[in-house]
Amino acid sequence: MQIEHPYLMFLGDAADQLAAKTAQGIVHWRRDWCVGQLRLDDCNANLGLPEMTIAEAAAAGVRTLVIGVANRGGVISESWIETILAAIGAGMDVASGLHARITDIPGVADAAAANGGQLFDVRHPTETFEVGSGVRRPGKRLLAVGTDCSVGKMYTALAIDAELTGRGVDCDFRATGQTGIFIAGSGVSVDAVVSDFISGATEWLAPANAPDHWDLVEGQGSLFHPSYAGVTMGLVHGAQPDALVLCHEPTRTHMRGLPHQALPEVSACIEGHLAAARLTNPDARCVGIAVNTSGMDGDDTRVALLGELSDRFAMPALDPVREGVGAIADALERI
Amino acid sequence: MQIEHPYLMFLGDAADQLAAKTAQGIVHWRRDWCVGQLRLDDCNANLGLPEMTIAEAAAAGVRTLVIGVANRGGVISESWIETILAAIGAGMDVASGLHARITDIPGVADAAAANGGQLFDVRHPTETFEVGSGVRRPGKRLLAVGTDCSVGKMYTALAIDAELTGRGVDCDFRATGQTGIFIAGSGVSVDAVVSDFISGATEWLAPANAPDHWDLVEGQGSLFHPSYAGVTMGLVHGAQPDALVLCHEPTRTHMRGLPHQALPEVSACIEGHLAAARLTNPDARCVGIAVNTSGMDGDDTRVALLGELSDRFAMPALDPVREGVGAIADALERI
Repeated sequence: MQIEHPYLMFLGDAADQLAAKTAQGIVHWRRDWCVGQLRLDDCNANLGLPEMTIAEAAAAGVRTLVIGVANRGGVISESWIETILAAIGAGMDVASGLHARITDIPGVADAAAANGGQLFDVRHPTETFEVGSGVRRPGKRLLAVGTDCSVGKMYTALAIDAELTGRGVDCDFRATGQTGIFIAGSGVSVDAVVSDFISGATEWLAPANAPDHWDLVEGQGSLFHPSYAGVTMGLVHGAQPDALVLCHEPTRTHMRGLPHQALPEVSACIEGHLAAARLTNPDARCVGIAVNTSGMDGDDTRVALLGELSDRFAMPALDPVREGVGAIADALERI
Repeated sequence: MQIEHPYLMFLGDAADQLAAKTAQGIVHWRRDWCVGQLRLDDCNANLGLPEMTIAEAAAAGVRTLVIGVANRGGVISESWIETILAAIGAGMDVASGLHARITDIPGVADAAAANGGQLFDVRHPTETFEVGSGVRRPGKRLLAVGTDCSVGKMYTALAIDAELTGRGVDCDFRATGQTGIFIAGSGVSVDAVVSDFISGATEWLAPANAPDHWDLVEGQGSLFHPSYAGVTMGLVHGAQPDALVLCHEPTRTHMRGLPHQALPEVSACIEGHLAAARLTNPDARCVGIAVNTSGMDGDDTRVALLGELSDRFAMPALDPVREGVGAIADALERI
């Protein structure tokens, strides 16, 4: 799977800006891949990109129509199909992040086949994976892990990718979820892989590489989240990470989606993920804590928390959005 | 899914006795469900059951033809289809433990539909699961965990089920793999579930129950096996076990299938599985060590090892085949 850019971002009839969260992430990290947006009449989201028709996008060289919007139920609206068919007719591929598959829409699948266009349902892996072997492979890998879901693991991995790239370090961001896959142009939605193959899919995603090459692997879930820890465990074992970054959102009062489930302690979370990582890479270490401080009141509180974490764990603690990830990149360059 | 018995055990053209391992397990634990065996001319396996044709089996009241045999590549031989169709024609259901799906054979699927017969591909869950909630539910649960794959987790759980049943304790064996599913008549092959739903599938499999009821949950893999630990993790969290039994095979020199991967220490294995279990059940404890001593030379060595493990961890250490699991059942009755 390789999703070709430039992208035309399709927002459909998005109910609000939040419904276009995936599209916003893509624009944030790959602004130069996104040449325009296409919105239906009742769309309430806006990416601030030039409005384009399919014909205008085709003339501008767009290769893929990206459906980076969630609607009620994750289904594909009837009202979207005309646009999807027009894109295929204009020679574009179509990539969707919805739960429902565009490949399941008979008219769309037939049109793509007739036009030689590709359809990508990025939530649904189509590759066949082996079970993980655990055999060490060359190249260096970082994995973002978390105290919870949705605490900034993708953002952190992408920020480190950008920082290392800026320093001339040979590296790749490896996507494990839908937004990341649009940003990388490829990847595997590991939570949709059959459970026997989680670590194997991750070994495939971040394969053997040059000794000085860094893979920055997007994390998923948390070993301390009762719903998703199995995914995280396979990801940790398959990534064989040399370095972990722990991502944390300090204002959360319980695990995401589970009001009865307390957050783990930061120390337990570092130790737990390191213990798991060392099964396949005995040299695994935690190189930093990435804290999403956007929900914190007052700059003093924020600075105090970061200082406390940094002192306590003897590693950089920073908000990637505010401080950048230079201190973590420094640590990686020393490995 | 409920596979109805009595069973007719179909051995096809099994290359050797090992190819009929699944069928042997079923006969061992459910001899009274297995009224006969059907073997093709070139079959090299034998379960010691009466030989029966489809007509004889139908007359004996057989409800399901069980394909409990592996052939090269896990596919369905052409030579089997005549027997499968005859069983359907005689009003039986057909249940298969192969990787290839009998529901994918057009003639077989059509015949089953026409006859109102059911087809069960037990390796391929057809249920739709929710993601795990981690919410505590009533009833008691035991989960068999292991230092490795294939160390006797199913045998141990079934032995405890039989022991508790014999004592009049209200309990159920909950199957998580193909042989176990034939033995229980239902269950979920958790390693074939999409990884987002491992813990949710386990919550579904071992649901809320009477406070004194015990579910004996078959384990899979090991938290220390780099190929399958994700499955194990979701299973541990979903089972919310009150009790763990650690299963161990002391003569193994490396993790199954991975010559480079050392076995974990028994102590690390108990602690690791307990730490994971306590995320969803803070009262989880390890109640015993089940050791497969079949590969050990000499009775003295065997007795010495069990004594050493029992002393060191202050819990029963036994070979379920030789000593039975009475000491573990005693521990469960004290919970």
